[in-house]
Amino acid sequence: MPDVSCKIAVIGAGTAGLAAFRSARELTDDVLLIESGPLGTTCAREGCMPSKALIASAKVAATARGGESFGVKTSVKVDGPAVMKRVRRLRDHFVDGVIEGYRAIPEAQRLRGRAKFLAPGILDVGGRRVEAERIVIATGSEAVIPGDIAEATGGRFMTVGDIFELHGLPERLLILGSGVIGCEIADSMASLGVEVSCLSKGGDISFLSDPLVKSAAETILKGHFRLLPDAEFELLGWEGDVFSVKLAEGDGPQTEGFDAVLVATGRKPSLNDLNLEKAGLELDDQGTPQFDELTRLCRGSEDKPVFIAGDADAETMVLPRANWTGEAAGRNAANWPSVGKADAPPTMGICFTEPSMAQVGKRFSEVEDRDDLLIGCADFSDQGRAICEGRNEGILRIYGSAKDQKILGAEMIGPDAEHHAHILALMLRQEITISEAQEMPAYHPVTEEGLRTALRNLSD
Amino acid sequence: MPDVSCKIAVIGAGTAGLAAFRSARELTDDVLLIESGPLGTTCAREGCMPSKALIASAKVAATARGGESFGVKTSVKVDGPAVMKRVRRLRDHFVDGVIEGYRAIPEAQRLRGRAKFLAPGILDVGGRRVEAERIVIATGSEAVIPGDIAEATGGRFMTVGDIFELHGLPERLLILGSGVIGCEIADSMASLGVEVSCLSKGGDISFLSDPLVKSAAETILKGHFRLLPDAEFELLGWEGDVFSVKLAEGDGPQTEGFDAVLVATGRKPSLNDLNLEKAGLELDDQGTPQFDELTRLCRGSEDKPVFIAGDADAETMVLPRANWTGEAAGRNAANWPSVGKADAPPTMGICFTEPSMAQVGKRFSEVEDRDDLLIGCADFSDQGRAICEGRNEGILRIYGSAKDQKILGAEMIGPDAEHHAHILALMLRQEITISEAQEMPAYHPVTEEGLRTALRNLSD
Repeated sequence: MPDVSCKIAVIGAGTAGLAAFRSARELTDDVLLIESGPLGTTCAREGCMPSKALIASAKVAATARGGESFGVKTSVKVDGPAVMKRVRRLRDHFVDGVIEGYRAIPEAQRLRGRAKFLAPGILDVGGRRVEAERIVIATGSEAVIPGDIAEATGGRFMTVGDIFELHGLPERLLILGSGVIGCEIADSMASLGVEVSCLSKGGDISFLSDPLVKSAAETILKGHFRLLPDAEFELLGWEGDVFSVKLAEGDGPQTEGFDAVLVATGRKPSLNDLNLEKAGLELDDQGTPQFDELTRLCRGSEDKPVFIAGDADAETMVLPRANWTGEAAGRNAANWPSVGKADAPPTMGICFTEPSMAQVGKRFSEVEDRDDLLIGCADFSDQGRAICEGRNEGILRIYGSAKDQKILGAEMIGPDAEHHAHILALMLRQEITISEAQEMPAYHPVTEEGLRTALRNLSD
Repeated sequence: MPDVSCKIAVIGAGTAGLAAFRSARELTDDVLLIESGPLGTTCAREGCMPSKALIASAKVAATARGGESFGVKTSVKVDGPAVMKRVRRLRDHFVDGVIEGYRAIPEAQRLRGRAKFLAPGILDVGGRRVEAERIVIATGSEAVIPGDIAEATGGRFMTVGDIFELHGLPERLLILGSGVIGCEIADSMASLGVEVSCLSKGGDISFLSDPLVKSAAETILKGHFRLLPDAEFELLGWEGDVFSVKLAEGDGPQTEGFDAVLVATGRKPSLNDLNLEKAGLELDDQGTPQFDELTRLCRGSEDKPVFIAGDADAETMVLPRANWTGEAAGRNAANWPSVGKADAPPTMGICFTEPSMAQVGKRFSEVEDRDDLLIGCADFSDQGRAICEGRNEGILRIYGSAKDQKILGAEMIGPDAEHHAHILALMLRQEITISEAQEMPAYHPVTEEGLRTALRNLSD
């Protein structure tokens, strides 16, 4: 096979890689997109999309089951295989969309195979030598499996992508980890009638850091499934088809059995196969390249520039970030040596439980020590529209700077939190003042009135 | 009974009157709040709140009934009396909240009785003479009953407030009028299993003016109930407990029977009892005072100033407007002769069907003749999140000015339209440019991505 040389090689055809490829190709045709794994992004194959399809069925089941208090008498039977079939049908639809986009790329600009560095600017891709003036690393992420879990389960566990391959629902599901994925799957599986235990060590509940919001979230979610975010437990292992856990709760340790185990203890960049030590980059202890956040340029790569984008950078692993970091990396690779700073949007996190949790801009843990901290709060238990809809639970806390009279960030759980997060993100993006934010228009009766209340009582 | 004299008299203790009273009282104690009707605002007693409670039950019923396609098998039986009992319980809760606020006003500052003008600055309130230096008219609105409907029904019909007094659901409900109220009640009653026919002459569908959005709305709503917004029909009248209508649809005229009739043909200001001809104001043909939109000052009243607020001004009758016009009227009454212009928020309309319809800023009919009109559109049939949730129908159209590079307004029907309307309203309020709007942050997968798509394809 002949060697290849190109101006830009993008390693990875996921969300970040595709974004990098496209933004580079707007500026040059000399771009090569390298992909080794199954096509389709993490988002479409095992992340955002199939989980939202699962959550949609869960919401329907929960709504139907709660009909009585609305004067709607229901009987509900969840057809697990039908739920999972729908999830896969939609997942495949979204994956097909990604693949279609991939296949529309001229063949000369894509290469299948695993890339590894031979030297700065030189890759081996499945035995083929690729010389690239500039390289974008966009290899995505994979689930972290802590050693004790791997050992206790003997490898018999699911990660989130495997959940969507289930052909029926388990009776008793053990979820290890109460981050975003753990909470979303726990909440939806519980609504679908699965007996869920979500255990974690360390006390995380999604991305929440504000003790008041976290406490509200814990109370709400505990009403849906067994949530022990800071649990003492010991994984005993499989015996036949039952996985046993020794768990200290209430009266003392007891042993419980589960039919299925989901490991959702976090994700890490997929960098191991890249042979990064040959790339001439500055790496941290974990082997992750050091980089500039807004240019995406990896440190130490100034001679043979390497950019990094998406989950591979080990920062917050969410699609909007994969998109903007990918675009920035691709653009800067094409424009090299002229390198621009990305106009990064405010940080956002949404955990699609019901009600949803959200975080925008700075988290409480990042601002709590400020001298000029303002906090505005809204409690949804008494919010008019939320009461009408029987969704009156949750809390929204907004952080502001008294000195700058600007909003810093927010954390929340409550009705329509995902939508309120977008309004706040726009406010942050536009850097509007607190008093401008307090004048946000709101119709009536809408949950946005709760958001406005929180803005209006921002005070120290 | 002794005569009363005061600096400011506010006529009406609804949303606008209470807002006027409160904003005036921040500046002076010499304010009198006059109310003759039952306490509680139109919003709480017969508008926004009970309708949202009804809609909540309807949504639950519709969601439960549609479970099959989500893999959730359900049987659904709507318990009409229980639905209506819940509606009244919540309505009473909200009304009680208003009344509590009213009763917290010092007795010396409130007066019960019907106010009518004896002369400029002089009112009769149930036989008592009230002299007021400045007056705020905030008497609200009432349903319009066209003469032919009054005649054909012999007065046996409901207006929207009566709906919430029903102790069960009718089998066949005739709704006359397809404005906001007609559409909301039709859509929710249909979801609750009522056979609804919503007839109108003139083609209105809520407040929509954009032919593409209107056509989408018509298609969607016709999937829920029989909607004939531009119908030929003749009201034949009651025979026993059946109200008959001769209706031309499809193969020709047929006669149909209904168990209940809701008249939702519009609302008009409640001004008749005020004896306005004695107030010294400029009135239009309908007897409505002429006024300045932003100061709320009635024309011709410069000697004995009269301000007007809320539904009484015969403009768009929605709560947010009642609030800001009330506040402006009260503040200007207190500050007279110094009069300031209100910082009016962008116009918003939301019709809480499922999916909801919304309008923000200028409507299509107000901008379609502009030379520099830009239109951006999003079709929700292919929107990722909407597909996951089986809510992938609807359309969003945004209007912009090429010359000013600003957003002018939007009309829409679709998933989360009520939330998208709030983002657009904030953009209008902040007067951000189109290119700034196009950079609105969006998480993934969210319906806000559809909104951003529409913003990004704003073009001529």
